[in-house]
Amino acid sequence: MLIKERHELDEFFNPRSIAVVGASPDPTKAGYHFFRGLVELKFDGDIYPINLNGSDVLGFKGYRNLRDVPAPIDYVIIAIPAYEVPKIIEDCVAKGVKVVHIFTSGFSETGRADRIKLESQIIEIARKGNVHIIGPNCMGIYHPKIGLSNFGVFSSKENGSVGFVSQSGGNTGDFARMGLVRGLRFSKLVSYGNASDLNGSDFMEYFAWDSETKIICAYIEGVKDGRRFVKVLKEAARLKPVIILKGGLTEAGTRAVSSHTGVLAGSDAVWNALFHQTGAIQVGSLREMIDLALAFSHMSCPKGRRVGIVGIGGGASVAAADFCEKAGLVVPRFMEDTIKGLEKITPVAGTGVKNPVDSPVGRRVAIPEYEKTLKLVVSDPQINFLFAHLTIDWRIHTPEDIKNLKDLTDALIHINKSLGTPVAAILRSSLSLHSWQVFLEEQNRCLEGGIPVYLTLEDAAKAVSKLIQYYEFRERVT
Amino acid sequence: MLIKERHELDEFFNPRSIAVVGASPDPTKAGYHFFRGLVELKFDGDIYPINLNGSDVLGFKGYRNLRDVPAPIDYVIIAIPAYEVPKIIEDCVAKGVKVVHIFTSGFSETGRADRIKLESQIIEIARKGNVHIIGPNCMGIYHPKIGLSNFGVFSSKENGSVGFVSQSGGNTGDFARMGLVRGLRFSKLVSYGNASDLNGSDFMEYFAWDSETKIICAYIEGVKDGRRFVKVLKEAARLKPVIILKGGLTEAGTRAVSSHTGVLAGSDAVWNALFHQTGAIQVGSLREMIDLALAFSHMSCPKGRRVGIVGIGGGASVAAADFCEKAGLVVPRFMEDTIKGLEKITPVAGTGVKNPVDSPVGRRVAIPEYEKTLKLVVSDPQINFLFAHLTIDWRIHTPEDIKNLKDLTDALIHINKSLGTPVAAILRSSLSLHSWQVFLEEQNRCLEGGIPVYLTLEDAAKAVSKLIQYYEFRERVT
Repeated sequence: MLIKERHELDEFFNPRSIAVVGASPDPTKAGYHFFRGLVELKFDGDIYPINLNGSDVLGFKGYRNLRDVPAPIDYVIIAIPAYEVPKIIEDCVAKGVKVVHIFTSGFSETGRADRIKLESQIIEIARKGNVHIIGPNCMGIYHPKIGLSNFGVFSSKENGSVGFVSQSGGNTGDFARMGLVRGLRFSKLVSYGNASDLNGSDFMEYFAWDSETKIICAYIEGVKDGRRFVKVLKEAARLKPVIILKGGLTEAGTRAVSSHTGVLAGSDAVWNALFHQTGAIQVGSLREMIDLALAFSHMSCPKGRRVGIVGIGGGASVAAADFCEKAGLVVPRFMEDTIKGLEKITPVAGTGVKNPVDSPVGRRVAIPEYEKTLKLVVSDPQINFLFAHLTIDWRIHTPEDIKNLKDLTDALIHINKSLGTPVAAILRSSLSLHSWQVFLEEQNRCLEGGIPVYLTLEDAAKAVSKLIQYYEFRERVT
Repeated sequence: MLIKERHELDEFFNPRSIAVVGASPDPTKAGYHFFRGLVELKFDGDIYPINLNGSDVLGFKGYRNLRDVPAPIDYVIIAIPAYEVPKIIEDCVAKGVKVVHIFTSGFSETGRADRIKLESQIIEIARKGNVHIIGPNCMGIYHPKIGLSNFGVFSSKENGSVGFVSQSGGNTGDFARMGLVRGLRFSKLVSYGNASDLNGSDFMEYFAWDSETKIICAYIEGVKDGRRFVKVLKEAARLKPVIILKGGLTEAGTRAVSSHTGVLAGSDAVWNALFHQTGAIQVGSLREMIDLALAFSHMSCPKGRRVGIVGIGGGASVAAADFCEKAGLVVPRFMEDTIKGLEKITPVAGTGVKNPVDSPVGRRVAIPEYEKTLKLVVSDPQINFLFAHLTIDWRIHTPEDIKNLKDLTDALIHINKSLGTPVAAILRSSLSLHSWQVFLEEQNRCLEGGIPVYLTLEDAAKAVSKLIQYYEFRERVT
């Protein structure tokens, strides 16, 4: 499957024309926002608003019915009440539409017999006409590169290598928005809800095939065809990192799953075995998923688990060492030569030189000393990679402070580029508005310099440990 | 000890005059920043810069020597090289100073015989003259109410009920800065470093006694007199919540501790037993400490562990249920009457009504429906408290969106005030600068309305579970 030249889902992700059924000029309607998303991102193709009055929307000519559109339509978004959906699917069949994204909810996920039947009815109609369905009860496809953006989540066509497959629409938007702020760039995202036709296995298979996607993230609540899912996941994880957040691992979570997307959640033990067997990597939250995707996007894999930590402040260094060991990393004592070298450039006072290096201290840091410190640490044969910890709030009071901070991150970027040792930066911020503004600026500079940035050392340690775990797995299976 | 009228440490926290030895006009010197902190916060008393040239600092008359100051000095901050400290302590003895905060490091924490001896020498001189020492190698006392602020961490004398005892100076600043942003207000903070004279037990005892402090937070790396520490902790935790972050629980962390403050860290098992025995509450990070202190500051204790969750987005609701159960909370199914009531006001589509309530949906929420939803949930006899989850980023595109968000938080504040059910809000933000600005505004409105605000449901669940755990403990022991 994975080596074939064409994947049938690829054309669903690359429509040349889109109609939004339920798009009206009324901004309280979801259909308006789906349409607006396409307009704002200048979708690379034709778009058509369809509504009861045939009203124009945002300057685009409106139609009363899909069949009235005088051109082929590849992709249809449906945002109208559930009971009106079957009729629209019939129109889609008549029009030769390839794929329909049904945003509308109120189908099988309610658990009601009449609504389950309604969903079956839709599928029956669609299958007759070779129309595929994404959903219902979902946000459909985001493909920023071509300007397919739901609800205006993306503000530019800037794209990247992270894909996201999700049973939840809300999580898809959250992941995209939070990920963008932290520096992730996306190939394609898809929220598939009730999976009445196209399901998690289909999308996972497509993302494994898709050359634009280098890292696959997924939010899964449950699967209907376990055997196929395991097979697809196994193949995907051998090709690229697959990071999974499993929703519904507790009793309450499982109950919430059933009223959310109406699938069986599966036990914790079953999923643990699945992660172990396939090499897919489990995370506990969207934030952890973003942290890990950042590591895969921006960091080469360290040759081992031994980290050198250059931090500032003894308390922070102690916590750093704790968090690293808990995450399964090793914080080795430096070689004697490194310690001697560090002692020469750092004052005796207030500085640990054994690892972590609690140095140099003070509000302004002398850059040559900082550079020497970094160089000594990454050159130590005990060390596979570097965590550099900087406190934003110490350096934002004057323009000179901020200049010093920039010089420090420049030194990090330089060491990363010149010596090739993997580096992650931890920029600690109080989250005051000013501090956060500076964080975002420095984060973006680090990312451009090839260094992923974390909010806490705990986050960095978890992410890099799982990065290494994945490459260890890959080495075993290939 | 705890019922006595006066605690001897109280005068150390309330000096009427302060001299900073090492305060000079040079902003690259730590002494300058200690002095500036006092000036900026308008310390309620006299302040004197002491430096080699007797230079004035920031308009305040400078002196060459403490003994030259023509008035009594209660509190001295020392920020000069280690080898010059003993002479200054002699001056302090001569001047009748009550307490000296030694910022300078390079003493016993280095592990060097000559430096250990230097620290002993200082203590010997101080004890002869009945001068007490905080440190060395620490940030000393912060008491915002009287304007005693190190390094300008506080920008106003606004104060509150949270105290912090810390072996680490860096953590003290981080905790204060991060806590302020999140809405904590502080009684007193102290960083005591090497604890050569006054130690963690002394400060814990004082904070237990201090009526300004209602919640005690502590960062501890290790203790020298375990038996006394346990006794003091036990008494403190019976009087007020004591939240402890223990640094150095892993091998690497322990090694970092010894080069940070030179004490024995103690094993994980020993500390677990200590938490169990005393009722002090363990947290894993400063962020978790802030989350928990917020719950104690802003929330009455729920009568049980059963939470009603009103969220938006099915994926978020599933994660919510998972996180609550993992944290030891219970997410019960609502009573049939509640479910029926919710079904009447929420559309069938896209909404769970069993708990969590995935409702109401849409960019703009109808406020009367939201209020009815909240009322039904908190009135359910199954429910002890409420988590309300709102996504900031859905409501920041237009002024009307932001108005709707404000109306939603107003509804939360109203339900909290009118029905008395404990409420915590989870305001989900992408952390984009605009989203974060709106978060901070809404957070502050919620806090004023008596509702603690969390960044994620996981954080909220952990905090409230530990809040309940503490009150359960208090009920058992009293």
